[in-house]
Amino acid sequence: MSMEAFKKAAARRAADMVQSGMVVGLGTGSTAKYMIERLGERITEGLEIMGIPTSEDSAEKAQKAGIPLTDFATHRRLDIAIDGADEVERGTLNLIKGLGGALTREKIVAQAAKRFVVIVDASKPVDHLGERAPVPVEVLSFGWECTADRLASYGARGVKPRTDRDGSLFVSDSGNMILDCHFGPIMDPAALSAKIDGTAGVVAHGIFLNMATEVLVATEQEIERWEL
Amino acid sequence: MSMEAFKKAAARRAADMVQSGMVVGLGTGSTAKYMIERLGERITEGLEIMGIPTSEDSAEKAQKAGIPLTDFATHRRLDIAIDGADEVERGTLNLIKGLGGALTREKIVAQAAKRFVVIVDASKPVDHLGERAPVPVEVLSFGWECTADRLASYGARGVKPRTDRDGSLFVSDSGNMILDCHFGPIMDPAALSAKIDGTAGVVAHGIFLNMATEVLVATEQEIERWEL
Repeated sequence: MSMEAFKKAAARRAADMVQSGMVVGLGTGSTAKYMIERLGERITEGLEIMGIPTSEDSAEKAQKAGIPLTDFATHRRLDIAIDGADEVERGTLNLIKGLGGALTREKIVAQAAKRFVVIVDASKPVDHLGERAPVPVEVLSFGWECTADRLASYGARGVKPRTDRDGSLFVSDSGNMILDCHFGPIMDPAALSAKIDGTAGVVAHGIFLNMATEVLVATEQEIERWEL
Repeated sequence: MSMEAFKKAAARRAADMVQSGMVVGLGTGSTAKYMIERLGERITEGLEIMGIPTSEDSAEKAQKAGIPLTDFATHRRLDIAIDGADEVERGTLNLIKGLGGALTREKIVAQAAKRFVVIVDASKPVDHLGERAPVPVEVLSFGWECTADRLASYGARGVKPRTDRDGSLFVSDSGNMILDCHFGPIMDPAALSAKIDGTAGVVAHGIFLNMATEVLVATEQEIERWEL
């Protein structure tokens, strides 16, 4: 199976956990898009749900798939949220997310969900967060240079604003910049998370602690289901 | 002396600490405006400084006063920042700020400054933060209802979006909403600050811990100077 097939397998399995009557948080990215497609198929088969998307991109995909959308004004709590991740720490289910740029809305949606199901292929589990992925940090453009200096003082290397493929500055759905911070293996993610959260200018960061309730990992052999 | 006269006295004293060659963070609000006016007077007397304003409003006042402005792209560190506060905790110099709505930029500027001088009248010192002032929390509009629920779960009462006098939603310079959170006296501001910082959807909050290096308090008798 190819990596795409792994992603798709995990995404479909997660979509099949959804039941009629649920309010569902719809993740963003290359794995979540398969989950949205599968939910669309199930809706044509009679599934009745409402979705809250984590990005403009997912909202568009959900509308194409025929998923009725709602918002937090109508539904303060979600029954389930399903999303991908860039790294999953074995044993803790802590995550790094946000290489797709939607980390802040993804975190808000995950925080509001009773269950948060993470879907990944076999390349995403790590022993320590930060082994491969940088930590994306969404920051206000006002004073971002100072915010970047501060993040560097916590041990981040090569801190610079994310750009789009054409070299222009990446702008989040909330109108902010993203600084990708290469920390290497993070031994105390709770301490680092608190330091970044406490930094003026930071809107959100991609370390998700104690948020995932289940992780589905698609491997060559099977789909593993991890929970704490 | 009236309250306005107290504010003005503290503000002028702080402005007189500024020396030629300094990059100065310019606070926002009814006390900071007197500091900006006084810096303008001193510039006509030969003072040479550059300012970084904490709001669009202060930028406008600074331009009127003749203070040359700069930004973080040119100056990553400020020599001094001067700003008002809504409450100052006796003994710790911890603050509540942001009733003027500029808390996020004020915090970024204070964080980047070597000295952070706070100017208040005698009504602002308290034994415990939160005695009188609510804690303003700047939040993203996406999912603000969930963020408000979360803040209420920390003990905040009457959490609702700040409105302008005409009843329309207040929008910060960064395009976000402000939730005023009435906690009452806060016995462990560090713990509360960390909890709010760790909440998805929060951009910044008005509890400023370990940031003020000096506080000038204008009283009937004199201007008291507090430092740790």
